[in-house]
Formats: sequence, C-alpha cells, structure tokens
Amino acid sequence: MSRPIYFTPGPGQLNPSISEYIHDALDIGIASISHRSQAYMDIHFATTQALRELLTVPADYHIFFGGSATEMMERILQNTAKLRTFHLVNGAFSRKFFHMAQAVGKTAIAGKVPDGEGFHQFPHEHVHPDTELICLTHCETSTGVMTGGDLIQAVRQRYPEKLLAVDMVSSSPMILLNISAVDYAFFSVQKGFGLPAGLGVAMVSQRCLDRSLELSVPGKYSGGYHSFSSWYEFGKKSQTPETPNVLAIYLLGRVCKALLSTGIASIRDEILQKAELINEVIQSHPGLSFSIREPKFRSPSMVVINTVNDSGLMISRLSEQGVIVGKGYGKQHSAQIRIANFPAHDIKSVMKLCRLISQIP
Amino acid sequence: MSRPIYFTPGPGQLNPSISEYIHDALDIGIASISHRSQAYMDIHFATTQALRELLTVPADYHIFFGGSATEMMERILQNTAKLRTFHLVNGAFSRKFFHMAQAVGKTAIAGKVPDGEGFHQFPHEHVHPDTELICLTHCETSTGVMTGGDLIQAVRQRYPEKLLAVDMVSSSPMILLNISAVDYAFFSVQKGFGLPAGLGVAMVSQRCLDRSLELSVPGKYSGGYHSFSSWYEFGKKSQTPETPNVLAIYLLGRVCKALLSTGIASIRDEILQKAELINEVIQSHPGLSFSIREPKFRSPSMVVINTVNDSGLMISRLSEQGVIVGKGYGKQHSAQIRIANFPAHDIKSVMKLCRLISQIP
Repeated sequence: MSRPIYFTPGPGQLNPSISEYIHDALDIGIASISHRSQAYMDIHFATTQALRELLTVPADYHIFFGGSATEMMERILQNTAKLRTFHLVNGAFSRKFFHMAQAVGKTAIAGKVPDGEGFHQFPHEHVHPDTELICLTHCETSTGVMTGGDLIQAVRQRYPEKLLAVDMVSSSPMILLNISAVDYAFFSVQKGFGLPAGLGVAMVSQRCLDRSLELSVPGKYSGGYHSFSSWYEFGKKSQTPETPNVLAIYLLGRVCKALLSTGIASIRDEILQKAELINEVIQSHPGLSFSIREPKFRSPSMVVINTVNDSGLMISRLSEQGVIVGKGYGKQHSAQIRIANFPAHDIKSVMKLCRLISQIP
Repeated sequence: MSRPIYFTPGPGQLNPSISEYIHDALDIGIASISHRSQAYMDIHFATTQALRELLTVPADYHIFFGGSATEMMERILQNTAKLRTFHLVNGAFSRKFFHMAQAVGKTAIAGKVPDGEGFHQFPHEHVHPDTELICLTHCETSTGVMTGGDLIQAVRQRYPEKLLAVDMVSSSPMILLNISAVDYAFFSVQKGFGLPAGLGVAMVSQRCLDRSLELSVPGKYSGGYHSFSSWYEFGKKSQTPETPNVLAIYLLGRVCKALLSTGIASIRDEILQKAELINEVIQSHPGLSFSIREPKFRSPSMVVINTVNDSGLMISRLSEQGVIVGKGYGKQHSAQIRIANFPAHDIKSVMKLCRLISQIP
C-alpha cells in the first residue's frame, strides 16, 4: 500500500516537498554549519523574510524561534505580564494557556463558554482593569472552534493599552489573522506548515519587547536564555541565543517560499473549497453531524465531527484504507473525529477521504 | 569536490548514516505520527533505553528531552536551586552556566582558574556551606580543557548532600563520565552524536527530582512546562510535555544503537588514537603548539591549538581542501584553531586533516 495520508491535527501530513528540501539541506551541509556563521544568518534572515511576506508581519515586529508552541505560550506570560492576565477559554488549548499563566505565578482570569462553543461577544465584564495581557486562541485544536477576526479587532480597539496574544497554532497560515492587530502571535511548524515537529515561532510587536524590558528585573526570572531581550539581541544579528533547530528553520523558509509562489490567497481559497467538500459529506452522512452548531464558529482548518457510533470504528475503517484522521480530544475521543485541512492536503486526497467516509456507515 | 569534512566544534560533521536514518524516518512516517501515540512512545522508550546502555545511566535516573543544552543548563538551575549555586569556571561555557545562574536569580559563586587552564584541585575554600547545587563542565568547548573524573568523584565524596550538575556537551559520548557520581548530566546532539541541532538531553537523578518537588511552590516559577515534575509525569508514559523534536529523538536512538553495535569502548579507543594523530602533527609543526600546557587537562574530544600566524590563514587553506576546522573562541579567534574529534570523524578523515596541516606553513 502507498504511504498513508494523515489528516490528524499535527504532527500530521508533511508538506509534499519536505523530503526534497531535507535532501537539499543535507546536500549543502545545512546541519553542519555553525549557528554563528554568515551561512546560518543568511538562512535565518531568509526564513524570517519569507514569513513576514506570507503572514503580512509588520516591519517593526520581531520574529523569535523556540522549541514548540508550548514554549511560546509560556514565554509571553513570563516576559510581558507582571501579574494579571485574561484568557478566553473554550477548549483544551485555551485552557492550557490559562492554566500555564496560573502555574507561572500570574493572577489569571478566564472568560469561558463551554468547550465546542464560540464567543459571540467578548466577556468585558470579567476583565480586571489592571489586566496586562489578553490571551486568546484563533482556532481551538481540540474542538475546531474559531475566534473571529472581528472579535479580535474589537478587543484591540476596546483595550488599546493592553497586550494581546493569539495562539494561531491550528490556523496559520490557513486563516487570515491581522498580525498588526495583535502583539504576539505564535504557532508550531508541524500543523499548517507541514514540517516535522520541533520549532515554535512567535511574531512579537515592539511594544511587547518594550514591556518585557520594563518588567525585567536583574536576578528575577523573565524567560532566561529566551527572555525577549536575549532573543531580540541575537535576533538583530539573525541568530538565536542557543543553537537552534537549524534544519527546521531552513525547512520553514523553503515551505514559506513555496506557499508564496503558489500565492497565499489561492491557498486560503483551496482550504475553503476542501472544507466545503468535507462539510458536504458530513451533511449527507446519516451517522455524522457537525460538532459546532453555528457555522460561523467552524474553523475550515480543523473540522470536528460528532459520530453516532463509536468514532473508533470509522477511524479504523479509514486507517485500513490508508487515511488517518484524528480522534476526538480528551473526553470526546470516541464520540468525535477531527480532520485537519492544511495546505499539505491536496484536493485529491480530500476527495478520497470524503468518498471513503461516505462509504462507511 | 566532494562534501567538506567538518571538524568544527558543532554543529559539525554529521554521523555518516544520518541521511539513511532520515530517509527511514520519512519512509515510515516518523514525522507524521502523534506525539501521544503508542508509535511515538515506542520510539521515545527505545531512545532512552539505548542512551541508558550507551552511557551507563543508572536505572533510577530519568531522561528528559528539551530544545538545546542551553535550555538544559537553565532548567537545572530553575528546578533544583532555591538560592545558592557554585560553579567551576575556566572558559566561556562554564562562565555561561555561572552567569545564567545569576540571571535567573541565584546567588552564584564561581571558583575560577584562567581560561585554558584546568583545576588541580577543587576550590573548597569558596564553597558556601549552604550551596545547593555545584555546576561544572566536563570539557570546555571554548578551550578544550577537561575536568577529570577523579576531581568529579572527589567533589561527590566531599559534598554528598549537594547536587552535582555536569555539562557534558563536548565530551559525550567520547569520554567516560560516571553518571552515577553526578545528579544531572546534559548534552546537545549536534556535537558527539553527530545529529542536526535542535535537541538537548538531560540525565537526572531521583534526588534531583525530589529536590525540585520540595522547592516547587504553586504559582512560583520552577521551569513551567519543563518543570522536572511535568517532564517526569509525561516521561513515565514515554512522552514529553510539549510536542517534541520527534525526528531528532528517533535519530538519536538510531545513532546510539549504531554506537552500541560498534561498542563504546572501541569508539573511545579510536577517539584516543585520533587525538594522538592530531597531537603528533602539532608537535612536529613549527607554527603550532598546544594551547593547554598540561597534557592531563587536554580533552581528546576538542583539541585546541595555538598558531604562531593568524589562525585564519590555516583555516582558509584547509577549507580550500574541503576540511573545515573551528576558529578560536571569542578573543582567541585568530590565535587558535579548534578541532573536534567525535565518533563521526573516521580515522581516514583525521589522517587527511593531519596531512594537510603538516603541509601548511
């Protein structure tokens, strides 16, 4: 049988050219060069430039590389909030952001709706006036719920003095996020970018950096070797404080350039087309239904489906045909399936997925 | 011209089978599997088992994976020292350990000898009785100075109640370190293991973990998502708190198994043989001399050479012949060359290196 197609939430389907890019990297010695060399700095710079273009990152934003999105979540809390954070919580990963704030000593407050539901409006009544940092999740990987750009924009307008951080792990680069409307946006590369795991990326506003410098007290922990000031100082030279995952930074640059050459607008169009195909099969299948009631909250990049039967049955049947989908998150593991819809999934694969789903009772 | 051979301190020469291992990894979908799946847990477990065997890690030690050796340095300080640390400092990387302790709020004291010199004895007179953690560097990457196992053993005997952490970045797996005599030993994979950068590894005693739990105060920072307790809880399931660099963990396992199959004793013998070849060319070359006066402090894994002329001349001449060596560290950049002697360097390459050096005035 040919290689399976992974529609799992990530790690999942690799960009189809990854193998070629890795081959190129080994061929030109990317993994052997010094992380302080001009050759490395050129790669680092090229990747950040491609990212800036792809995601329309404002020129005065900084780009930091770390180990994972989990790290990027912790770093913003450590570096820019002295005490008070506020979180929109409606699923496992927004809850993780909230709990992490508490774990690292912040007075965190959550505005909540049940998992699987979206925010019709921002819960202003729960926001303490001294809140320094507002954290939200663009697309909840656990439930597929999207927080719309209009809400994000409204938060920015209402609280211009507060910092705004957005987890865009399962939405980037598939869904437009206006980076200039937020102070910190982060993702990991094993989702929409289709890379092997092991790299987290954050786009950071200048005022985020300024805040971190104001808060930084010598001898008090503020992110250590990955303090924003340390990241910034090395970043000015297109370097990182530690020896980074050079191979992943190179691969990310290659993937961004390929996406740019296809055109981000047409990639996003295709994401919507593929989501439509999946939506059609859900609607026509008697054993499936949308887990998210209201269409406006359904992320096209992470489709979550309720199954009448144990979802494990459909998951195994698909797996027998070389198509791997995700189980439901946490308690929903046998009641739902999750289908990632990323640039690495071509329309043909999605059509195969839909055909197979329609054939399984 | 064929691909260059990298004798740089790392990132440097890749294990000669890396390309094959990466090919295997892509072929069996290593980079696509979930980091919570049984398939991942099997890889994680296999790698830790191979490491345990290769480095004779005691059964009750834990193995944690992070992003870099820099991270592993920070984590031990964060997790196990409330206040007082003590550091042996004799070069840039032991100084980095010391400064990092200060940066993250510890009262750190250093026992120093000049860079490029070794410790004849442990500076007991500088050790505050309440010191919780003693930090030292097995092989200083910046100078090639080795801190002998006898001194490490003596520290352990003199201070049985204090924790002992060892940076083995440029010595592992080439030089024997008795892991059971220390509480924490860490390395990154782009040096002696010949992997692409992007993974740090720590071997952690049970009493290190116990200490971290004693010190852990809810709401106070103690390593966050990479707190020892979090690493330990996920580690019990052969997982990590975040999505890790799965590919690197797989590759590390493959390299360890290959080293085990050759036999660690014969690998270490070969390191000594190759060091002997390099030593001979230094002794016979009128423009070169050992940067470290006393032979007992010279690490066979990182040979540092003083050059009468600007070292850049020899470095370029070697580079023209496809042999890349490191420049001196920091201020020594044009007065020294550094030659890594790792398992990835076969005797034939070292003979070529030595022949070329002997031909360059």
